[in-house]
Amino acid sequence: MPELRKDPVIGRWVIISTERGKRPSDFPGEPRKRSAKLCPFCPNNESSTPPEVFSIRENGSHPNTPGWSLRVIPNKFPALRIEGDLNREGEGIFDKMNGIGAHEVIIETPDHSKDLPDLSIEEIIKVIRAFRERIIDLRKDARFQYILIFKNQGEAAGASLEHSHSQLIATPIIPKRVFEELEGSKRYYEYKERCIYCDINKQEINDGTRVIARNELFVSLAPFASRFPFEVWILPINHNSHFENINKEESSSFAEILKITLFKLARALNNPAYNFMIHSSPINGRYQQLYHWHVEVIPKLTRVAGFEWGTGFYINPTTPEDAAQFLREIE
Amino acid sequence: MPELRKDPVIGRWVIISTERGKRPSDFPGEPRKRSAKLCPFCPNNESSTPPEVFSIRENGSHPNTPGWSLRVIPNKFPALRIEGDLNREGEGIFDKMNGIGAHEVIIETPDHSKDLPDLSIEEIIKVIRAFRERIIDLRKDARFQYILIFKNQGEAAGASLEHSHSQLIATPIIPKRVFEELEGSKRYYEYKERCIYCDINKQEINDGTRVIARNELFVSLAPFASRFPFEVWILPINHNSHFENINKEESSSFAEILKITLFKLARALNNPAYNFMIHSSPINGRYQQLYHWHVEVIPKLTRVAGFEWGTGFYINPTTPEDAAQFLREIE
Repeated sequence: MPELRKDPVIGRWVIISTERGKRPSDFPGEPRKRSAKLCPFCPNNESSTPPEVFSIRENGSHPNTPGWSLRVIPNKFPALRIEGDLNREGEGIFDKMNGIGAHEVIIETPDHSKDLPDLSIEEIIKVIRAFRERIIDLRKDARFQYILIFKNQGEAAGASLEHSHSQLIATPIIPKRVFEELEGSKRYYEYKERCIYCDINKQEINDGTRVIARNELFVSLAPFASRFPFEVWILPINHNSHFENINKEESSSFAEILKITLFKLARALNNPAYNFMIHSSPINGRYQQLYHWHVEVIPKLTRVAGFEWGTGFYINPTTPEDAAQFLREIE
Repeated sequence: MPELRKDPVIGRWVIISTERGKRPSDFPGEPRKRSAKLCPFCPNNESSTPPEVFSIRENGSHPNTPGWSLRVIPNKFPALRIEGDLNREGEGIFDKMNGIGAHEVIIETPDHSKDLPDLSIEEIIKVIRAFRERIIDLRKDARFQYILIFKNQGEAAGASLEHSHSQLIATPIIPKRVFEELEGSKRYYEYKERCIYCDINKQEINDGTRVIARNELFVSLAPFASRFPFEVWILPINHNSHFENINKEESSSFAEILKITLFKLARALNNPAYNFMIHSSPINGRYQQLYHWHVEVIPKLTRVAGFEWGTGFYINPTTPEDAAQFLREIE
């Protein structure tokens, strides 16, 4: 019998259709990387990108020259523009504003052949540091309400360059899904006087069937109402509303769980394309007690997501319990 | 300068990123249909599907034999099951219920080689009649709250069989996107005492820049805050909350605008894969004045929909004004 499950935060019902169950080997993987001919993200090609806004260089090398271990640049084809005023206005019953924002690219490694989980814990800590420093810089800009960090890995996930990178978009609005989570968390907080994600963590860690990996400070799990096969969330175990509050010990623990989780997905699913996004609190507003930052990882395994877009109604052929068990057992 | 636009119904902001503008020829089409070897939806193969629940037969032929012009069958691999009780229950903080529902397939034509816009107006009227009759039958079932009609055309849109067909899912819950539209329409109605879709129709028809086609009773347009290139909505011009209220004159007018709109999309975009869904009012509840049924058509042109799923934040490289102009000019 298929099962309908409700996302406890935003109230979305999902069909877990076990009778259409799929094993990991039923899904196609992504082709492996090809050569690095003329990759603009590779060392020595710094001049083919806009000038960097941040970099990590242990050897005292100059900006926009080789010698970096991580580089942040403005997106050459930005979805939003940094210069100008918002100029909110109406058009009859419609509302619009200028597309003001920041759109940056975090080049995670100089090595074209490596994906994020291939990096060492130390290298992943640098990526986390770059995310954090860019957020702290950009949140000073009063035009922005939200800073979103995400990664498109693989062509099927929308990546146009294969050299491993993440992206940052600072926006004058709060993305809808994040807003719904904030509202759902607030509703729960008003009713229970507790953070809903803290309660999810507690129940999931006690129960164990949907846990994929954990260490002292972080847990990765297959969410109860997973929309997609092998959907994964990574949450800090202790309550924390803003990603950029992450301290040194937490960075190290987060790097470890991120590496393990992405490694398990890559091994189980033959290097699938995937998206991940960091859901964190908006720059302004009182979310300290309500909201709990976390990462959502969505492997792009099925094309079944047809009408799902238009209805918000998902059919998932793999139970999160099966996905979690499979990923737990990957070494 | 890119522009941020707000969907007036559900409040979702979308980036219209004109500087990444795409022409219709930049998008890949779907391969044309292959041969009909062993298609379970073709005449003479009736025994390879579950027994039909509805058919249109002008020649007095028997059920589950050839001679039909349209056939409705239960889905052989249903996402939801028709037998059983809902059995709503908790699992700690989580909520679930049995996956009870109906999942049917509307085989729109016996002719394997034809797509929906290739059918005559008379044939499309039969498809509309089938949608209506199945809704009227299923809404008697007290377990269901919503009946969703949708179509996946082409492999990239999730269709597993190429013979032209639509689907119906009756669900014990209201799909999230529809629920958001109901809530948004209610908010507008409470503020203005008018239907928001009636106001959209009026402004769009007066303005004309986003109109694709219209006749006396229906209009098709590129919505102001389009999420996707060449997204299209088809709306009845006069207020009507429930699709199944459609009368004979409206059916004919709807068939005409549906054929014209899908034909224009097919011609402009080289037979793209697409999804369409009918958004109508739930079976129960007082939506007569608030909500206005309509169709959303989403051609599957880009893979850019990567992180969009996880954030509800869309970047659309084609302005709806450009899309509408292009489609208007297709003959």
